[in-house]
Amino acid sequence: MQSRKQLPITNAVIHPVVLLGIVDHYNRACKNTRKRAVGILLGTIDRRGHAEVLNSFAVPFEEDERNPTVFFFDHDYVENMAAMFRKVTARERIIGWYSTGPQIRPADMGVHEIVQGFCSSGHALYVICQVDPKETGLPTEAYVSLEEDSVALEGSAPGQPRRIFEHVPNSIGALEAEEVGTEHLLRDVRNWSVSTLTGEVRAK
Amino acid sequence: MQSRKQLPITNAVIHPVVLLGIVDHYNRACKNTRKRAVGILLGTIDRRGHAEVLNSFAVPFEEDERNPTVFFFDHDYVENMAAMFRKVTARERIIGWYSTGPQIRPADMGVHEIVQGFCSSGHALYVICQVDPKETGLPTEAYVSLEEDSVALEGSAPGQPRRIFEHVPNSIGALEAEEVGTEHLLRDVRNWSVSTLTGEVRAK
Repeated sequence: MQSRKQLPITNAVIHPVVLLGIVDHYNRACKNTRKRAVGILLGTIDRRGHAEVLNSFAVPFEEDERNPTVFFFDHDYVENMAAMFRKVTARERIIGWYSTGPQIRPADMGVHEIVQGFCSSGHALYVICQVDPKETGLPTEAYVSLEEDSVALEGSAPGQPRRIFEHVPNSIGALEAEEVGTEHLLRDVRNWSVSTLTGEVRAK
Repeated sequence: MQSRKQLPITNAVIHPVVLLGIVDHYNRACKNTRKRAVGILLGTIDRRGHAEVLNSFAVPFEEDERNPTVFFFDHDYVENMAAMFRKVTARERIIGWYSTGPQIRPADMGVHEIVQGFCSSGHALYVICQVDPKETGLPTEAYVSLEEDSVALEGSAPGQPRRIFEHVPNSIGALEAEEVGTEHLLRDVRNWSVSTLTGEVRAK
């Protein structure tokens, strides 16, 4: 077995409001189109590389269907929004970005490098969120980018170091205080089938 | 019985991401202080006065503890944020504001009048969200403001019309598409007691 270098972000906890925010962004702006939803993740990363994804905002994003490496990502928009969010909660910084994928696309390393420029650590977290209702597993995948030669890859080509995405373990989690909101949802959301919900809970 | 005038907003559905966003805003910015969280509600109001509260953002807000009618509400901040949200989803407009109350406070009619200036209908929805975990009922109350003399109030004083808050029926609800996110939460949020969750669902 080959050794693996320490990832700059070792694991990520994605908070409920972020998951709902991404799903809503997709439904409002992208549903029934070929577009995907792209936005910024805010939160904290501690010294051990543990990331808490606490908040998010949507970003205007366009990509060229014919040339998938051509995209428009509104850099000024991100800068302005981040400055405005800091006025309310100074502790949360840009720590990465999200897309609704559903997979990594050719433009993504380019976007990732732009987002890294906003991250004080120089490393960004990339979260792909599945919005397909058929999906039954964890709806999120998380990645960091590494130089290919710093990763133990079998059969990697020699030459210029290329950046590649590497998986980061992630989970959905709430702080105790946040569960107030989520518990109210369980009590109050209408039109849910009780049997489905109970089934979901029992299946845990 | 005295007749009641039609309310400019007849009922409001508050979407899950808004509820979680308010609770998170409070926990991040106000917990263990005497402050409350204040922010803007985005969404749609149809011709019959039915409001869908689809999104929200936090606003910097300060009030004077000694003089509860003195407050600072960042008007420019609201204008800038609303313009930025419109770049992603043009359909959502400012339709009101929220606070974590827990009750209506003396400053609130002043804030409400500022927010009304941002609402194309000239009417704003005010939602107070309970963030107290002991609360067991619906965590939200919704209001519109009316001129006192247009409301049937017993024992109301004659003279200059004064604006007062009037209750609006409200519920927490999700569009079918949004339930994807909420269902994932049920499956994936860690550290929840299965028996508690199942109990909640059965109690519906």
